[in-house]
Amino acid sequence: VLAVPGLSHANKEVEALTKDPKNFATWGLDYAGTRYSTLDQINTSNVKNMQVAWTFSTGMLRGHEGGPLVVGDVVFIHTPYPHRVYALDQGTQSVIWEYTYSGEKDTDQAQVISVMCCDVVNRGLAYGDGKILLAQGDATLVALDAKTGKVVWKVKNGEPKVGMTSTNAPLVVKDKVITGIAGGEFGVRGFLAAYNLKDGSLAWKKYSMGPDADVGLNPEKTMTWTDGKLAPVGKDSSTKTWKGDQWKLGGGTTWGWFAYDPQLNMVYYGSGNPGTWNPTQRPGDNKWSMSLWGRDADTGEAKWVYQMTPHDEWDYDGINEVVLVDQKVKGQDRKLLVHFDRNGFGYTLDRTNGELLVAEKYDKAVNWATHVDMKSGRPQVADKYSTDKNGADVNTKGVCPAALGSKDQQPVAFSPKTGLFYIPGNHVCMDYEPFEVEYTAGQPYVGATLSMYPAGVDAKTGEKNGSHNLGVFTAWDATTGKIVWSKDEPFSVWAGAVATAGDLVFYGTLEGYVKAVDAKTGEELYKFKTPSGIIGNVNTWSYKGKQYVGVLSGLGGWAGIGMAAGLEGGSEGLGAVGAYRSLGNFTKLGGTFTVFSLPNK
Amino acid sequence: VLAVPGLSHANKEVEALTKDPKNFATWGLDYAGTRYSTLDQINTSNVKNMQVAWTFSTGMLRGHEGGPLVVGDVVFIHTPYPHRVYALDQGTQSVIWEYTYSGEKDTDQAQVISVMCCDVVNRGLAYGDGKILLAQGDATLVALDAKTGKVVWKVKNGEPKVGMTSTNAPLVVKDKVITGIAGGEFGVRGFLAAYNLKDGSLAWKKYSMGPDADVGLNPEKTMTWTDGKLAPVGKDSSTKTWKGDQWKLGGGTTWGWFAYDPQLNMVYYGSGNPGTWNPTQRPGDNKWSMSLWGRDADTGEAKWVYQMTPHDEWDYDGINEVVLVDQKVKGQDRKLLVHFDRNGFGYTLDRTNGELLVAEKYDKAVNWATHVDMKSGRPQVADKYSTDKNGADVNTKGVCPAALGSKDQQPVAFSPKTGLFYIPGNHVCMDYEPFEVEYTAGQPYVGATLSMYPAGVDAKTGEKNGSHNLGVFTAWDATTGKIVWSKDEPFSVWAGAVATAGDLVFYGTLEGYVKAVDAKTGEELYKFKTPSGIIGNVNTWSYKGKQYVGVLSGLGGWAGIGMAAGLEGGSEGLGAVGAYRSLGNFTKLGGTFTVFSLPNK
Ligand SMILES: O=C(O)c1cc(C(=O)O)c2c(n1)C(=O)C(=O)c1cc(C(=O)O)[nH]c1-2
Ligand SMILES: O=C(O)c1cc(C(=O)O)c2c(n1)C(=O)C(=O)c1cc(C(=O)O)[nH]c1-2
Repeated sequence: VLAVPGLSHANKEVEALTKDPKNFATWGLDYAGTRYSTLDQINTSNVKNMQVAWTFSTGMLRGHEGGPLVVGDVVFIHTPYPHRVYALDQGTQSVIWEYTYSGEKDTDQAQVISVMCCDVVNRGLAYGDGKILLAQGDATLVALDAKTGKVVWKVKNGEPKVGMTSTNAPLVVKDKVITGIAGGEFGVRGFLAAYNLKDGSLAWKKYSMGPDADVGLNPEKTMTWTDGKLAPVGKDSSTKTWKGDQWKLGGGTTWGWFAYDPQLNMVYYGSGNPGTWNPTQRPGDNKWSMSLWGRDADTGEAKWVYQMTPHDEWDYDGINEVVLVDQKVKGQDRKLLVHFDRNGFGYTLDRTNGELLVAEKYDKAVNWATHVDMKSGRPQVADKYSTDKNGADVNTKGVCPAALGSKDQQPVAFSPKTGLFYIPGNHVCMDYEPFEVEYTAGQPYVGATLSMYPAGVDAKTGEKNGSHNLGVFTAWDATTGKIVWSKDEPFSVWAGAVATAGDLVFYGTLEGYVKAVDAKTGEELYKFKTPSGIIGNVNTWSYKGKQYVGVLSGLGGWAGIGMAAGLEGGSEGLGAVGAYRSLGNFTKLGGTFTVFSLPNK
Repeated sequence: VLAVPGLSHANKEVEALTKDPKNFATWGLDYAGTRYSTLDQINTSNVKNMQVAWTFSTGMLRGHEGGPLVVGDVVFIHTPYPHRVYALDQGTQSVIWEYTYSGEKDTDQAQVISVMCCDVVNRGLAYGDGKILLAQGDATLVALDAKTGKVVWKVKNGEPKVGMTSTNAPLVVKDKVITGIAGGEFGVRGFLAAYNLKDGSLAWKKYSMGPDADVGLNPEKTMTWTDGKLAPVGKDSSTKTWKGDQWKLGGGTTWGWFAYDPQLNMVYYGSGNPGTWNPTQRPGDNKWSMSLWGRDADTGEAKWVYQMTPHDEWDYDGINEVVLVDQKVKGQDRKLLVHFDRNGFGYTLDRTNGELLVAEKYDKAVNWATHVDMKSGRPQVADKYSTDKNGADVNTKGVCPAALGSKDQQPVAFSPKTGLFYIPGNHVCMDYEPFEVEYTAGQPYVGATLSMYPAGVDAKTGEKNGSHNLGVFTAWDATTGKIVWSKDEPFSVWAGAVATAGDLVFYGTLEGYVKAVDAKTGEELYKFKTPSGIIGNVNTWSYKGKQYVGVLSGLGGWAGIGMAAGLEGGSEGLGAVGAYRSLGNFTKLGGTFTVFSLPNK
């Protein structure tokens, strides 16, 4: 762990760390979230010899999301709620310190668990200013001393009694740490918050919906894509798209990942689904749920916002990660933001101003919309799959993708060598039946019954092929919006990918395999069965001159909720239990950190 | 899984299976319990290249004892209570069937857990007659169809409400299955029971103490070593060594391992400590606690019995496994029974008749007795370490070994190539303070406070050397009673060893390492850190021409009880928590089956 630098430059330290491929110092490897490592010791010709170097059980069952953070010689791993964090010595593979969270005195663990929508997952740690940051399940944010594991400060970021929880991976930016909130299924009004790294005091907090001031919107200056150009959002752009006070239960939570551009000094992320999954109950566009955001890192003010799925009717929660890359679009160098939404469209925007450049289906199974109209920026919804048009208590069948999207929380990787994005994908469709629901604080505010099943079509063409795969792993050109190659996987790929200069892409599968594929062709070059299903991110780093690949294995998350929470009914677990039931034939619960390397020779 | 043969010859099938090193069909590899495999693909020169082939999480935390059973192409693994059994396909590493035990309707799981003395461990499965046998924590014995996992029959072998539990590995013998009972710390009167494989009906049941008929003693024919020769035990040999009815709470439980000699048709095992650890409360030899037994497999009648620790004052529970080998002693071919007792003596007897041949310290730290008098067969107790002579409420200090013995449940291996036994050992001493305790059914009947610490002496010489190791791994010549080599380990070696024709011995450590050492020299040739601490048995087998080594990793058992049960006080967990506290710096809970092989080339 490096020396503590001046606070206002914590991000300089993080930036420096992320530039040395020895480390994996933030969830996305770098602030841009590329998950691209310049390490090439393990490459397409020798990856077949890769083997397990060491393993470490976390002592916890249920879903292990996120990945190991590596800062200097120390590996930091974390567990689901109620959390543990271990600082591990790579030389001796032993515990330098551990942090065991037993919850706050006034908080009932069982109640917290009951309001975590999709297992008790956590997407991982952040490092900055000599501290390890963890957004805890009960919506407290804690800063640990990276050297000792002692609590430096802890703040309450939300109230679990009303369904607020935390599962996001925080991001250290300058003298602040950025975090979000979960609870979109409990009528929580989402926000992004920045706390001062030094003492945990609140620096700013901006909601996804509500009055302009709450949301950090400047009616004249905050831009959005409208009618083929960027235009100011105007006054009350959020509240006027909701019936009455409904924005107060508006959802738009922020439970995923955040990215940062140090040059532009902007923070980027997506906001989640609007409150209640029953669209007939909440007329209007429900702004700014389901939106991509560019905010000033110092003030939180929105520079631009773009709504991907106005008036969501399918739970296409917009929180998936955004990746900041500089590529040529139509011959022009652009500063891009690339995002693969749950709704099945891959978006490429200009991150300086929010200009919409590309919006194409990255899985051709997608049928809820025919396309995104590039002028209005709005998806053209297919009436047949409109759960609002079909109405409450009508089961709309065959909607693709399912609520868990063509991709969910599992982050993509980008390789500057190929110029491609690597998308761990779901290939799942659903039936969706909305019903009337009344809000009660701390109770589910869902209002829809779902069931899910394999898409049964070719992901590259959309043609029916009677396939049973629930997953795909896809290489994508974000400058043109085209699939380059796509590989079927029996189950959704719920694990984050990493790309390397060894021309490899690594990912994990729900049955528990770590796989390495050729970045150019998708050819599978290696697989190994880890103890449990993988929903964590595969990361890579080096130690004493050797490249390592590591991942938390531990089934759970929404796809693994049946086993994680012991649910049996096909439509339980918000509709996911049925589709993934056969996972039990392949793997069981259990958190294990598994580290790979080439053999010593 | 082979075809079902005639029932009365189930052992013929098991014998045949154990003769093919492809399998690992009983806990001891063979009926003799040698844990010796003729496989030699992995050997002293290539073991350094060994690597993890695959892994499988059991979905359970706490202590994973016992090892994988391999019958044909199928691997069967089990978990702690409340149990799961998985039949795994080695080709696809997926689940053929699983058995999940949710307990009996009238049984309270928490109560069962509260009366399992030393974690909720289980020492593993038996195979025979197309069935998989499991002695469950709540003292039910279940037979599963080896092809489907369906329950064929289930019987109640004991009442958990009065502290009877099961942790033993059953043994299939002819048309019966042999099992025992745990509860020595709850005033349970131990017994060995044989159930008919076909339907689970009781064939015979013989107690460790009580009236001759209950114990299966023939006053004229059952022999014991006395005064330099074998002599009949005589009438009431058990009851007359107890005050009044105390034999009814007499202990002598049978929670470990059983061996069988098909030619002699005899079953062998050891019985445990007498009821209450406070020796001042139970005058007399307390026969036949702490004894080695040879019984007729058809009737259960005792052919011979030998008490190792008359009137136990230290909890030197005598259940450790017995190994049946044919070796020369003093130039003569003998049918031997070799046993490494908790009390620190390695015993070699003639298994045909119970003649005492050798009794020597296999860890020179042992100080509670100066030696075993070969004429009387009795240990010569050192007054200083007699907790009875020192009396109740006096803390007798510096007793070696500690209650968990110079070896506990972890089985040894024997190599016919070297003629040596390989002993996974403890190197721990204790303070022991007995106190008056009254019997209450289902409550601990312990009556002593213990604390444990490193022996601090050289295991080979007994000389003080200020060492801190809690474990040793020792090679032993049972024909002479001599240590050949001994290797220190930081923690007790709580995992069962296996020896191979590749001149290797494999074992596991509490920090989680699987190690391979040279059978001749003890030189460490390989180590790998599995996810959790190892208290399971390392087994080896082959599949499609490749040799595999496999072990259940998963900290717990008596040595790991602090972490497994969340105990903090140094003298909690029957005195074990303090000594092993630092284990938490190395590993955490979590059950993972880890399989090794040489790389594909
Ligand atoms: O609306 C929310 O606040 C919220 C929270 C979470 C979460 O915190 O994990 C998920 C979702 N929604 C969600 O829609 C979803 O698909 C999802 C998947 C997972 C997961 O970890 O597998 N979490 C969540
Ligand atoms: O007296 C008994 O019935 C009994 C039972 C058990 C058991 O069933 O595990 C142990 C012991 N005693 C015991 O003395 C002991 O050292 C021990 C260690 C372990 C273990 O699994 O680590 N179990 C037991």
